[in-house]
Amino acid sequence: MIDLDAALEYVRANRDAHLRQLIELLRIPSVSTLPEHRPDIDAAAQWLAEELNRVGMTRTTIMTTPGHPVVYGERLDAPGKATVLVYGHYDVQPVDPIDEWESAPFEPTVRGDDLYARGASDMKGQLFAQLKAVEALAAHGGVPVNLKFLFEGEEEVGSPHLATFIGANHALLGCDFVINCDSGILRPDLPAIVYALRGLAYFEVEVHGPAKDLHSGVFGGAVHNPVQALCELIAGMHDAEGRVTLPGFYDKVRPLAPDEREALGRFPTTEDDWQRLSGVPALHGESGYTSTERVGARPSLDVNGIIGGFTGEGAKTVLPAKATAKVSMRLVPDQDEAEVCGQLREYMTQHAPETVTWQVREMAHGPGAVMNRHSPYMRAAVKALEQTFGVEPVFKREGGSVPVVGLMQKKLGVDSIMLGFSLPDDGVHGPNEKQHLPTLFKGIEAHVRFLAALGNIESGDADIESGDADIESGGRNNPG
Amino acid sequence: MIDLDAALEYVRANRDAHLRQLIELLRIPSVSTLPEHRPDIDAAAQWLAEELNRVGMTRTTIMTTPGHPVVYGERLDAPGKATVLVYGHYDVQPVDPIDEWESAPFEPTVRGDDLYARGASDMKGQLFAQLKAVEALAAHGGVPVNLKFLFEGEEEVGSPHLATFIGANHALLGCDFVINCDSGILRPDLPAIVYALRGLAYFEVEVHGPAKDLHSGVFGGAVHNPVQALCELIAGMHDAEGRVTLPGFYDKVRPLAPDEREALGRFPTTEDDWQRLSGVPALHGESGYTSTERVGARPSLDVNGIIGGFTGEGAKTVLPAKATAKVSMRLVPDQDEAEVCGQLREYMTQHAPETVTWQVREMAHGPGAVMNRHSPYMRAAVKALEQTFGVEPVFKREGGSVPVVGLMQKKLGVDSIMLGFSLPDDGVHGPNEKQHLPTLFKGIEAHVRFLAALGNIESGDADIESGDADIESGGRNNPG
Repeated sequence: MIDLDAALEYVRANRDAHLRQLIELLRIPSVSTLPEHRPDIDAAAQWLAEELNRVGMTRTTIMTTPGHPVVYGERLDAPGKATVLVYGHYDVQPVDPIDEWESAPFEPTVRGDDLYARGASDMKGQLFAQLKAVEALAAHGGVPVNLKFLFEGEEEVGSPHLATFIGANHALLGCDFVINCDSGILRPDLPAIVYALRGLAYFEVEVHGPAKDLHSGVFGGAVHNPVQALCELIAGMHDAEGRVTLPGFYDKVRPLAPDEREALGRFPTTEDDWQRLSGVPALHGESGYTSTERVGARPSLDVNGIIGGFTGEGAKTVLPAKATAKVSMRLVPDQDEAEVCGQLREYMTQHAPETVTWQVREMAHGPGAVMNRHSPYMRAAVKALEQTFGVEPVFKREGGSVPVVGLMQKKLGVDSIMLGFSLPDDGVHGPNEKQHLPTLFKGIEAHVRFLAALGNIESGDADIESGDADIESGGRNNPG
Repeated sequence: MIDLDAALEYVRANRDAHLRQLIELLRIPSVSTLPEHRPDIDAAAQWLAEELNRVGMTRTTIMTTPGHPVVYGERLDAPGKATVLVYGHYDVQPVDPIDEWESAPFEPTVRGDDLYARGASDMKGQLFAQLKAVEALAAHGGVPVNLKFLFEGEEEVGSPHLATFIGANHALLGCDFVINCDSGILRPDLPAIVYALRGLAYFEVEVHGPAKDLHSGVFGGAVHNPVQALCELIAGMHDAEGRVTLPGFYDKVRPLAPDEREALGRFPTTEDDWQRLSGVPALHGESGYTSTERVGARPSLDVNGIIGGFTGEGAKTVLPAKATAKVSMRLVPDQDEAEVCGQLREYMTQHAPETVTWQVREMAHGPGAVMNRHSPYMRAAVKALEQTFGVEPVFKREGGSVPVVGLMQKKLGVDSIMLGFSLPDDGVHGPNEKQHLPTLFKGIEAHVRFLAALGNIESGDADIESGDADIESGGRNNPG
């Protein structure tokens, strides 16, 4: 018999020890975008495999892919009960701009209630919370569900090999639903469950002018500067109303119905909150929508990076040969990533001047997703959060992308329950990323309660339906 | 008595030895834009001071400035004859993009008729030619003019301390005219003398949006991306006619008179030449002007570099906090650099949206200049080129900037004679910079003839007048 109170007492009594273990994992700089960190990727995978054994998996293995390895672990000793696939990623974002970190990104440092480190919030802290909940239950009567763990090392580069991996291991990964902790809540006192995510389509756009870098005095005025040409093309990707101008971009966007807008209007994140969280002088976006609507229910286009010509200290009078931008779109149902790629190429074909040549390279993509909020698993998650935080969680529709959620729907036919405990000001992907420790410790307790409650649900109880259109939105989490 | 033939024979007989000496100088990576090269700056200054002694200066000194040192040398043993101030710079541009060099930039390499190295053409090769001409004459009857050498180490960063230096050493530097070899000719068989130059105004424009880098999924659509805002501002700096839109930018531009346009139309550089030299798919510039007119007699605005957000390998979904561009203008008479700075700030004030904040930093500037083509010194230069190349040189109006030329007019009241021997395809400021050696060796002979001929002109013969408006233009040289 599970002794829930003892399990909860165990996680409370062991906070210091757990923090030390998490710091160990955070010290490993498993940056997936940079080839030189491959040994660190392997070290993080090894650490997690050993940890899976420690917390009671009966079978653990590091499985190779053409990219970074997948760590798999299972414990299938709850016949008749649900099988849960726990998804996580052990890779992290690069650390630049490094000089803006107050403490080194891979020397985890506690300041006040927060633990500062790259990956603290996105998402080593989150998967660690899951592992500690399993450890607690295993030590106090057992885990009442069948568990499978899948930790990938390529989420931050768009999970290029995950679809193939899942396809090739379909039987191994079969489950009733997925727990995905790559998400967050709204405030330390307000839990939330993300049930909808935007998709992502990420490109590199390169514009070439002169055959080589020229002298800006000798040729300036007679040649279309490729930086200028790229700026003109980027400037033209939005109109005066803040709408994206790629041809056909909005054709398949599911419109926002009046009752959905009303629901979104009740969401606690105000325009002032959005401005404070972002730190911009003034908000800006598609005309006719609130910020909560813009990030939750409308697609967007951003330049993630741009480079061309001389960018060092001082003044170099070069007329650059080329300029490159990383341009990505956040997609909502029912936009299709492949169609959006075609729309970008069509835009470039229509608008790039004859004075330059260009290439568009597809870097990463993933579909959006909307989940069923009424399954028994989802209801159990809601209850676990309510018991832990003392307040009913809000459902939210998220602006970020967790492509694996759409992938799990498509490849395994199952929904994901997003149950992470990052906070809006955690600074994921930027400098000084942190995890709020009191929230993380509550998260471990919530996981304990949720897993314990799953023991009361028989496998097959749930009807997975596609998500409805009862939209709520706002806040943030930490998807890639 | 000067034995001109013996001096010319000397430079012909010693080409191999001279090439080896030039290679020694080119091996010193005296990059002025990068602080880590300061020891190399000092080494190049030391090398030149020793070389000045070797070629017969009676007084040589390395003079400090708040930046890089000035190398000064003199030989004042021709009473009643002209005093010539030879200006040069021993600093060079950075070498990026380094991976496009076929041989290492500071390992000078001869391939065919060309010597490849950073600084080979701009302008260590040019000042070296001047030194070898002095050496030849000193060894064969003496130098028939009074010589002063001023080699600075900050030309490629806009000569920030030169004006103060000249002001503080006004008497020391007093002269009848300046020889400035920071220039080139049109073809190996077509000598040229630059008599007009565009000015330069160089800025860094920085646009700030969010307080820190944000997640593009969480905030994308609700925040004005600062890269996009910067692109919009840059795109707006030209109108559909290719004209610069800064308020008042053309107010003081000296218009192109019909007879000047006719003269420019006779210049040998065709539109096809411009396209071939630049390697662009199609030429582009201000409507109603030819390329030769655009670079010679019209102002221009270029983005020399741009950077913002994530620019590494792969895909990072960041919404950047800021973006920065280096923006510079080439100015023609009678545009004023300070006024242009004000015009840029006014443009930003008028057009920057309230969603971002911005700064404009002035990086470098220098005036344009037009010189008298009819002074006895200029006539002697024309004759020396004609005797060396067997063809009359063309006068040209140059798109690049040599701010020191305007500075010498302003501070010392003297014109400069531009007498360098780089070629349009030397790739200055870019990868694989080279110097055509047969042209450089002819250059040494031309310098020998020119200095010898100056012995026939008494000091004070020349009336320095401001340049006329008989404009010719085209080609290129290697100003900073």
